[in-house]
Amino acid sequence: MKSHYVSDLQDGQAVSTLFLVCEKSIRTSAKGKSWLELSLRDRTGSIPAKMWDNFEAIAKTFECDDIVVIRGRVKLYNGQKEVTLEQIIPAEERDYELGDYLAHTKFDVEKLFSELRASISAMKNPFLKRLLESVVDDPAITPRFKRAPAAMTMHHAFIGGLLEHVVSLIGLSRGVLAQYPELDADLLLSGIVLHDVGKIDELSYDRGVQYTTQGRLLGHISIGAMLVREKIKSIPNFSPELAILVEHLILSHHGSLEFGSPALPQTREAVALHFLDDMDSKMAAVRSSLATDSGEDDWSAYSPALGRKFLKLDEYLKSSATPGRTTPERDPPKSA
Amino acid sequence: MKSHYVSDLQDGQAVSTLFLVCEKSIRTSAKGKSWLELSLRDRTGSIPAKMWDNFEAIAKTFECDDIVVIRGRVKLYNGQKEVTLEQIIPAEERDYELGDYLAHTKFDVEKLFSELRASISAMKNPFLKRLLESVVDDPAITPRFKRAPAAMTMHHAFIGGLLEHVVSLIGLSRGVLAQYPELDADLLLSGIVLHDVGKIDELSYDRGVQYTTQGRLLGHISIGAMLVREKIKSIPNFSPELAILVEHLILSHHGSLEFGSPALPQTREAVALHFLDDMDSKMAAVRSSLATDSGEDDWSAYSPALGRKFLKLDEYLKSSATPGRTTPERDPPKSA
Amino acid sequence: MKSHYVSDLQDGQAVSTLFLVCEKSIRTSAKGKSWLELSLRDRTGSIPAKMWDNFEAIAKTFECDDIVVIRGRVKLYNGQKEVTLEQIIPAEERDYELGDYLAHTKFDVEKLFSELRASISAMKNPFLKRLLESVVDDPAITPRFKRAPAAMTMHHAFIGGLLEHVVSLIGLSRGVLAQYPELDADLLLSGIVLHDVGKIDELSYDRGVQYTTQGRLLGHISIGAMLVREKIKSIPNFSPELAILVEHLILSHHGSLEFGSPALPQTREAVALHFLDDMDSKMAAVRSSLATDSGEDDWSAYSPALGRKFLKLDEYLKSSATPGRTTPERDPPKSA
Amino acid sequence: MKSHYVSDLQDGQAVSTLFLVCEKSIRTSAKGKSWLELSLRDRTGSIPAKMWDNFEAIAKTFECDDIVVIRGRVKLYNGQKEVTLEQIIPAEERDYELGDYLAHTKFDVEKLFSELRASISAMKNPFLKRLLESVVDDPAITPRFKRAPAAMTMHHAFIGGLLEHVVSLIGLSRGVLAQYPELDADLLLSGIVLHDVGKIDELSYDRGVQYTTQGRLLGHISIGAMLVREKIKSIPNFSPELAILVEHLILSHHGSLEFGSPALPQTREAVALHFLDDMDSKMAAVRSSLATDSGEDDWSAYSPALGRKFLKLDEYLKSSATPGRTTPERDPPKSA
Amino acid sequence: MKSHYVSDLQDGQAVSTLFLVCEKSIRTSAKGKSWLELSLRDRTGSIPAKMWDNFEAIAKTFECDDIVVIRGRVKLYNGQKEVTLEQIIPAEERDYELGDYLAHTKFDVEKLFSELRASISAMKNPFLKRLLESVVDDPAITPRFKRAPAAMTMHHAFIGGLLEHVVSLIGLSRGVLAQYPELDADLLLSGIVLHDVGKIDELSYDRGVQYTTQGRLLGHISIGAMLVREKIKSIPNFSPELAILVEHLILSHHGSLEFGSPALPQTREAVALHFLDDMDSKMAAVRSSLATDSGEDDWSAYSPALGRKFLKLDEYLKSSATPGRTTPERDPPKSA
Amino acid sequence: MKSHYVSDLQDGQAVSTLFLVCEKSIRTSAKGKSWLELSLRDRTGSIPAKMWDNFEAIAKTFECDDIVVIRGRVKLYNGQKEVTLEQIIPAEERDYELGDYLAHTKFDVEKLFSELRASISAMKNPFLKRLLESVVDDPAITPRFKRAPAAMTMHHAFIGGLLEHVVSLIGLSRGVLAQYPELDADLLLSGIVLHDVGKIDELSYDRGVQYTTQGRLLGHISIGAMLVREKIKSIPNFSPELAILVEHLILSHHGSLEFGSPALPQTREAVALHFLDDMDSKMAAVRSSLATDSGEDDWSAYSPALGRKFLKLDEYLKSSATPGRTTPERDPPKSA
Repeated sequence: MKSHYVSDLQDGQAVSTLFLVCEKSIRTSAKGKSWLELSLRDRTGSIPAKMWDNFEAIAKTFECDDIVVIRGRVKLYNGQKEVTLEQIIPAEERDYELGDYLAHTKFDVEKLFSELRASISAMKNPFLKRLLESVVDDPAITPRFKRAPAAMTMHHAFIGGLLEHVVSLIGLSRGVLAQYPELDADLLLSGIVLHDVGKIDELSYDRGVQYTTQGRLLGHISIGAMLVREKIKSIPNFSPELAILVEHLILSHHGSLEFGSPALPQTREAVALHFLDDMDSKMAAVRSSLATDSGEDDWSAYSPALGRKFLKLDEYLKSSATPGRTTPERDPPKSA
Repeated sequence: MKSHYVSDLQDGQAVSTLFLVCEKSIRTSAKGKSWLELSLRDRTGSIPAKMWDNFEAIAKTFECDDIVVIRGRVKLYNGQKEVTLEQIIPAEERDYELGDYLAHTKFDVEKLFSELRASISAMKNPFLKRLLESVVDDPAITPRFKRAPAAMTMHHAFIGGLLEHVVSLIGLSRGVLAQYPELDADLLLSGIVLHDVGKIDELSYDRGVQYTTQGRLLGHISIGAMLVREKIKSIPNFSPELAILVEHLILSHHGSLEFGSPALPQTREAVALHFLDDMDSKMAAVRSSLATDSGEDDWSAYSPALGRKFLKLDEYLKSSATPGRTTPERDPPKSA
Repeated sequence: MKSHYVSDLQDGQAVSTLFLVCEKSIRTSAKGKSWLELSLRDRTGSIPAKMWDNFEAIAKTFECDDIVVIRGRVKLYNGQKEVTLEQIIPAEERDYELGDYLAHTKFDVEKLFSELRASISAMKNPFLKRLLESVVDDPAITPRFKRAPAAMTMHHAFIGGLLEHVVSLIGLSRGVLAQYPELDADLLLSGIVLHDVGKIDELSYDRGVQYTTQGRLLGHISIGAMLVREKIKSIPNFSPELAILVEHLILSHHGSLEFGSPALPQTREAVALHFLDDMDSKMAAVRSSLATDSGEDDWSAYSPALGRKFLKLDEYLKSSATPGRTTPERDPPKSA
Repeated sequence: MKSHYVSDLQDGQAVSTLFLVCEKSIRTSAKGKSWLELSLRDRTGSIPAKMWDNFEAIAKTFECDDIVVIRGRVKLYNGQKEVTLEQIIPAEERDYELGDYLAHTKFDVEKLFSELRASISAMKNPFLKRLLESVVDDPAITPRFKRAPAAMTMHHAFIGGLLEHVVSLIGLSRGVLAQYPELDADLLLSGIVLHDVGKIDELSYDRGVQYTTQGRLLGHISIGAMLVREKIKSIPNFSPELAILVEHLILSHHGSLEFGSPALPQTREAVALHFLDDMDSKMAAVRSSLATDSGEDDWSAYSPALGRKFLKLDEYLKSSATPGRTTPERDPPKSA
Repeated sequence: MKSHYVSDLQDGQAVSTLFLVCEKSIRTSAKGKSWLELSLRDRTGSIPAKMWDNFEAIAKTFECDDIVVIRGRVKLYNGQKEVTLEQIIPAEERDYELGDYLAHTKFDVEKLFSELRASISAMKNPFLKRLLESVVDDPAITPRFKRAPAAMTMHHAFIGGLLEHVVSLIGLSRGVLAQYPELDADLLLSGIVLHDVGKIDELSYDRGVQYTTQGRLLGHISIGAMLVREKIKSIPNFSPELAILVEHLILSHHGSLEFGSPALPQTREAVALHFLDDMDSKMAAVRSSLATDSGEDDWSAYSPALGRKFLKLDEYLKSSATPGRTTPERDPPKSA
Repeated sequence: MKSHYVSDLQDGQAVSTLFLVCEKSIRTSAKGKSWLELSLRDRTGSIPAKMWDNFEAIAKTFECDDIVVIRGRVKLYNGQKEVTLEQIIPAEERDYELGDYLAHTKFDVEKLFSELRASISAMKNPFLKRLLESVVDDPAITPRFKRAPAAMTMHHAFIGGLLEHVVSLIGLSRGVLAQYPELDADLLLSGIVLHDVGKIDELSYDRGVQYTTQGRLLGHISIGAMLVREKIKSIPNFSPELAILVEHLILSHHGSLEFGSPALPQTREAVALHFLDDMDSKMAAVRSSLATDSGEDDWSAYSPALGRKFLKLDEYLKSSATPGRTTPERDPPKSA
């Protein structure tokens, strides 16, 4: 039933479809004219919308985070598109697919999950294998593991971001294991899969992405460590030493106290996990920054996460008389 | 002619061979007895040595950093081996292979260099390829690139360390390029090969490893950037934009101002290079820390570079009733 | 059977009693004379000891952390007391009270524990009361809670230090609860009792005080939070919200990320707990610093924990012509 | 004569009373319509106000920080109350009580002052007692000591805040003196009373609260130390050592250089004062943050002073099925 | 042809002259009325301007950074001057002097440059003299050296700022050389002239002041060092040691790593240069802050560069009954 | 009566003269031989000394900081000179000039003081002039102002250092006043003369240089501000505003809170004073570092104050084939 998406709307177009209401307020002009002002979003972006007349009763029928059917017309205001609304009707839950209304990973979540499961299946250490299975196959966890973002704003801040991040780390870890044969592969994989598992409870991500109260008071690192300890308790003969090594990976993965890790990485696997996690989250933040329209020819939008702008390499080299980039942009890797 | 190595000396053994003199002093006891005290080293380690009688004339015939032939006997003093010297004779340069006297990479330097050359040969961007060739094939640079350590003390602090580090980064970069197809492979390789090239002039490493005056006053980052700019000048049609991108990789690879980079990484390649370099140097520091005898069962020696000790994983898990590590330690990768 | 203590030994005194061996080495003089050198300690302090002859066989009969019976004589060496040893015999466990050999709290541990129990008994919230009881009355925990130091070196670094610190905080909290009636008394008490409970596993304190491997890899904050979560699981109907509030107190009590708390204090009780804990540990560090002989008239020994010396107030004011301190030093409080 | 307060105004209500003018400007709409816009405040809060016609002459009759009589009507604009003004007349000083127009302590200032005086009367050290009396009973100081806020914005930022803060510290110090009998009670009380006395000159607080030029250039710590030194000069036989101890308490009470203390706390009393002051100011900031309407169910408004939000404990526990807080919120302490 | 300047415009005045367009947008009111809104500037400041009718075609004839001839009338809007536009015509390049449209140094650029040249002429070291001449007399550099600002916003952020800063440093260095005779005058002068030469490429300053892509990726410190090395290469017999000393001055002049210097000052000249540069840039920032209208009697506008406001000394002392400043403000120095 | 100085002693020389005793201890060898070990110093340096026999009674006749007459012979021990003592006799105060035993300024103190007085005489502001006179001409201050060091260890750490530093700043300020005519010359001079006046009480410098208890508890900045306020009180009609400006100069001269200034510089004069003070103290630290024998050809001893070594410029350039420094080292300035 979702017929139009924000990213496709054109000036002058009549539109009649569903959106998620993000912000809602009644505004009044200096001369006393009132109107209803909304921010509407779907998974492709958000757009402001205004209803100028007879909105008082309608405004009471829905709240922020509700999905509504609207009818209206797109117009330009100060050079930016907005929707002039004629009608707003709350939608029934059977009428929409919530996934249409939030940004999510560009990858196929089920394929990502299969890749994760395949990596776990190939493990040799039966205890670690059983631990990872007990987490990712727990019916109370699986759907949230597939859905959780990897962060509020810093990186992978979209539905499925956690899983995309984990699978990307699995990919990176192959080269690292090849280069540092002294690393214990199963332990490193355990760290990769579990390091951010606390995100599933630190954040709420049903309609918008917010910190939960639990998330603010405990943080995903401690939530994850406690969750994993409970899972370990249920596995017979799981040695206490191995348990401590796994918990250490979770607790230390931010790499330093001031970034929220209560312990510094003190095993080879913890050191490697920290660097891989740091690299993948920062590369994702760069990717996201370069994907956002910045209005500048050669430079991305400013990334608050990284405190700088990034160069649009290809645009920059195009201005050069002699060719720069000769390695063509390649296809994405098979899974992520 | 080098017949015995420090790591093989046994208590009571008579020894007659060559060493590098690292430290040299004349000591006097409280009661006025004087003796000559040396620190002798070869590529396997160092050992104290003392000459008790008739050393005055001999002591004037050699200096620190000289190679000498000694004759003496190993004994234990306070539980540590030392050599009681009977004779010391300065060696002629034709009599020794300097490489026997300094710690160096465990890898075959020529094989490492071949790998580096092979990676350069496979490049597609003719300008970057020619730049890298002009550096690593410059007869004034090649032997120093093969010999330079990657650092004074932090990581790869041995002869050949720079080359080992570069080739290790090339290995790591394969997985990274697979995971982030948006990266320009040739540009990243250029950063890997050139980022620490200034080390060849920042340090002196003929006999001991020291900072040069140039190294202290300019630092390897600026030395490298200036060296590369000169090489670029000699390549016709090398675009100024591409030159800036390469220089940016060198200048930004420490990742932040307080670690000595005058510019923050602002391209995808510079971000990736920074994380790879950081990971490889820290993993090498962990490896070195775990390889040093610490006297503790489960913990490495304290690493000043990283500010902590590291867990000896296998020893720790051995104390566990149930098996921990099941993935056996694998062979090292082919080249590095 | 322990007849002499380190703090009482006099120059020239013959001594025949038990000590804990802290350090042990065989030393050799420049001229080749060897001797056995020990550091001996009991709860009042430590003293060096040397055996000059016939020590080779004896030295193999004991190790560091063993209790031995020694016979010898005290003498001055460079102005400091040491023991010249004539005989050393390993002691049987039945022959000594380990408590004689480690520094411990000056308070009566059983009285401290009674006070703690009395505070718990007076609690009104049945869930929190039951939680605290399930911890301090757990037979696997009680003896360790009574014995653990509160820290390695910073404050209360002696046997019973944790309990002394907790009871001191209970005392301080009375005034704070009176001043800030908005505080939940039972929640604050829970934080006081549980905030450092992880110390019982972070440290080993049977003979010397050391970090455990678990302690280094996880830290007492995470160990405590995980221990408390397990206890809560066993209490029926303990609300998840209340659980989070208690865990938050433990996780946030260091007050900031860089001091190892993975969450900032975000409840009134957590803010108050942080300041009380900080004050009590620092006041204890000042007390300890002023109790150590400094060799200076007006100033304490330098406190590495606090980075400064402290003024000996009374000595300083004595030098004054007009009286300064008029409030006489009072008796200690009833319990701590 | 003040008949209505900001906190009581209702939509549609006609209002005719006095307010303090905080902000004043003439605004013009895009189409050229001009109006007068004010911010009016009294001790209960502030409200915007607009005059649409014939305001040109009136606007010249008063300035910011003046008290005016206004006549107008309350209306809602964008969901927020504001006053449409019909008339504005500057008030005569005899017509108003300035105290009605600024936020002030909820406690009775005279009772707070009596408590302070009682604590001073109970002192045993005649010199310190006389010093405190010479400050708080100085007719040039008493009224300002009763009136000064304890800070611009961080904590106790209201009329009488300094006195409330000092009396709260006196309350807290009782428990601390009981717990640490080695503390000199009179010296600690001197620090409590005098540590922020410089605030009386650092800030101006006649109508709004602002830094004085003296306050910006010298800071309250130095102002206070210099004021106290002058008072000490006037007391015969006050020993120089005791003077230095009192001045040290003032200079060091912020606890570290980066927070503006030119000396670190180096006496037990200075250490205790620093922690008490820190705790009381932070607890007051938390209290103020929780008292501000945040629009969130479980969380306070963001506190810029503390860099976080705080949990509304009772609201959070209400959502729990099983009861959380069982200790009922108690009455405030007798004095503060 | 530039007849009116922003700083002279009066309310109600008809104006017909040229301005630089800084910002340009089409705005629409809530009721749908659209207009063209510009920011116009010349070297004396900037002023907003609006065109209410028939602007659609005109708006397409010019862009930001263009110079236009406008006709209109000044009016007050919200108490601030703005221009109501009647006509806008793009200007021909022959019709204007670009210098009229950007802020520039108050000193005569040619006189500043003569002073610089005179200082160079007086040098005794032939190599350093030739180096400085080869830079400032290079026809590709001279005009940019005369035109570049010394910074984007921090200090001397106007056309000619670099040269003004350099000449001011030359003036300051005279006293410093007199006080520290151990300084090498020619080396210090080299550092003064060359330390910021990279600014000529780090910034673009044709119409507005912006960072160039090169400037962002390399920074002026590295740009300057590389430029100077190239110049040195072209001077026969310039000793490598002297080259390193000059490059060191450029690389270290920010004084610490966190401020972007990849090397710390390690010669007397580098230490002196750092302090002189720091003082002159901060004094210029204070000057600029005090020259900006702040709306406060005694205090300047807040300086973001320095993080504070500055006292208007003379105004502050005027409020004093007894005279304060007796040394009258003197004439500016002859050249800068 | 002082006949030999430390800096002149030669190996084998018999010596009979006076020294200040800095350190004193009785040492015992491993075999039980005891001896007396001293550190002796005069204004040219320090030397170890040992008495091997019959020292017990003699050792009780003097203490550290006493002046003694010794007789003995210089010998080399481990390559360093020391004195073998035959006799030690405490000296009478009439027998020595204390100035011979502490390092002091190389300048003539009376000439420095005359220069200071001349600068004060030339002042135009009668209040500031009278203030400075009331300080430097106060008979209780003058001798201490001439004698105090400017710091414990950082810079000018010798007798007369404060005065040398002040006169050097006066010299530097001439060029600064010429360059920044907006500076108030008399106010800047007041800051220069008074900024470190608290040093006269912060340090004791009769025999060794130590912090006083007052110095540790208050710091020289607060001591200075309070001293100046007292002086100002005694000058009729000194305006409070001018007083605040002078006190501000003292309080803010360290430039930032973390370096101990409780206020940031907020006047032009305070900004200039901070930079001048910083430059002069650092240049003095460099000078002192380069004057200390380092054992390295091209580099000074490591300066703990500045955290680095400094280049010996002339030695470094000497190694160059082509001449570097052409400006010969000049004579010192007339006064300082």
